[in-house]
This record gives sequence, structure tokens and C-alpha cells, in this order.
Amino acid sequence: MKKKRGITERRSDCPLNATLEVLGDRWSLLIVRDLMFKGRTTYKDFLAGGEGIATNVLADRLQRLEAEGVIEKGRDPVDARRLVHRLTTKGLALAPVLVEMIVWGARHYQTAAPPATIREMTEHRERFLADIRSRAGAA
Amino acid sequence: MKKKRGITERRSDCPLNATLEVLGDRWSLLIVRDLMFKGRTTYKDFLAGGEGIATNVLADRLQRLEAEGVIEKGRDPVDARRLVHRLTTKGLALAPVLVEMIVWGARHYQTAAPPATIREMTEHRERFLADIRSRAGAA
Repeated sequence: MKKKRGITERRSDCPLNATLEVLGDRWSLLIVRDLMFKGRTTYKDFLAGGEGIATNVLADRLQRLEAEGVIEKGRDPVDARRLVHRLTTKGLALAPVLVEMIVWGARHYQTAAPPATIREMTEHRERFLADIRSRAGAA
Repeated sequence: MKKKRGITERRSDCPLNATLEVLGDRWSLLIVRDLMFKGRTTYKDFLAGGEGIATNVLADRLQRLEAEGVIEKGRDPVDARRLVHRLTTKGLALAPVLVEMIVWGARHYQTAAPPATIREMTEHRERFLADIRSRAGAA
């Protein structure tokens, strides 16, 4: 539990800094994205995620995200030999952060973001976020 | 301009990945925060920012943020010897990202975030974001 640092062990007491100390690297939020939007749940899924994450980096980030209570591990209900990951309530609460980062990236860089999805995220933001929450609740 | 990479030079064509390749580290968004919320504009201001950023890291991040068109440098209109930074339109468009990260951090960690500000960010989100835009336009 060494990652569950109190306020005195952080660089500052700023709430943005707290978020960045947990998620401020180029990989953690991609794992959250895989779980939230892409139906990827296993170690193998994440490895094949498209950005070419290295095994040691993936193992480290999964461990950190779990220690922070953003994700949790469990057995696949369909195949108990399979270890799957899912977002906790705290992890699901990152949906607005991801949505805003996706919208900003899609607006300022050339990406493969489907324009219809970006429109949905901006013009029907609350509905889009509610959809994510309900899909997760049903899982 | 080596940081202005096209889609083919990025890890993937995902819009979240684009954002993370630009801002996915533990420091860049703190500089954006300083400019957006704290009225810090000079190199010295950023150094004194509270998280103890190292001079070489600060210089690197400022250079990258400028190369990406998130911030721009200029002379202080009041004292032309002073070099100041400001957010570009692209940088200001990060306001929703910062707001959501601040809210998530404040909700899940013990921080110094004033509850009234967090309430304003969540209950009057559009007004809060409009305020940021208008303050920047007036600057």
C-alpha cells in the first residue's frame, strides 16, 4: 500500500496534483480507456492495445491503478481461469476526464476519432456519461 | 519542431493517446494550471509553484508546450524586460480537462481544494468554464 500516500507525502495539496500523481503518465489512462470504452479486460488485451505498451510498464501500471483503487482484479465469471480487470466506482468516475481529453485530442490533432462520437460527447455530454455509468453498472 | 509529430509518428491514432503524448506527464498540466488559475506567468513564478519542479524539467516542459502551441511567450506589456507566458486558444481549451481532473482529485483524495470552488465547478460547470474563457479574453 505504499502508493496510498497521504497529503503530506505528496508534492503539494493541490487536487490537480493529486490526480497527476496517480494518473500523470502516458500509459495509465490508456488502460482506463481500454476498460471503459474498448471492452479490454485482460493483461493480454491491454498488451495488444495498439500503443505497444511494454510488459514491465503494463505490470507496473496495473499494480499502481489497483493500489489506488482505480481498478480491481477478479476471475472471469464465464471462465474462472481467466483473470480480468474492471474499473471500480472511483475508476468509473474518471469518465468525464477521459471524455474531455478525447475531445481536446480530436479537435487539435489528426486522429481516428469518429466525428459522430465526438459530437455525442460534446452535444449530449450528460447522456454520454450516463451511458458509460449504466453500461458499467450492468456489467 | 520535432515535437509536432504527425499521426504516423504517434503510438496510435487514438485521440486520447494524442492528448497523453502532449500532456501525459506529471508536470505539464501543473504549468497550464498555474497560467489558468493562479496568475503565474513567468519562469520564476512556475519555479515557485509549490510542487518543486526542477529547472531543467521546467525548461523542457515550457519548450514542449510552446512547440505544441499550448502556450506562447511574450514581453510583459507593463515591463518589457520581463518574459511572460500565456495560454493560447488551444491551451485555454484545456479548461474542461483541468476542471474534471481537479474535481476527481478533490473527491478522492484529501486536498486543499476549497469545497465552494469544487461545487461551482460541478453545479455551475458551464458558467465556471465561461468565466475562465472571459478572464483570458480580457487579459
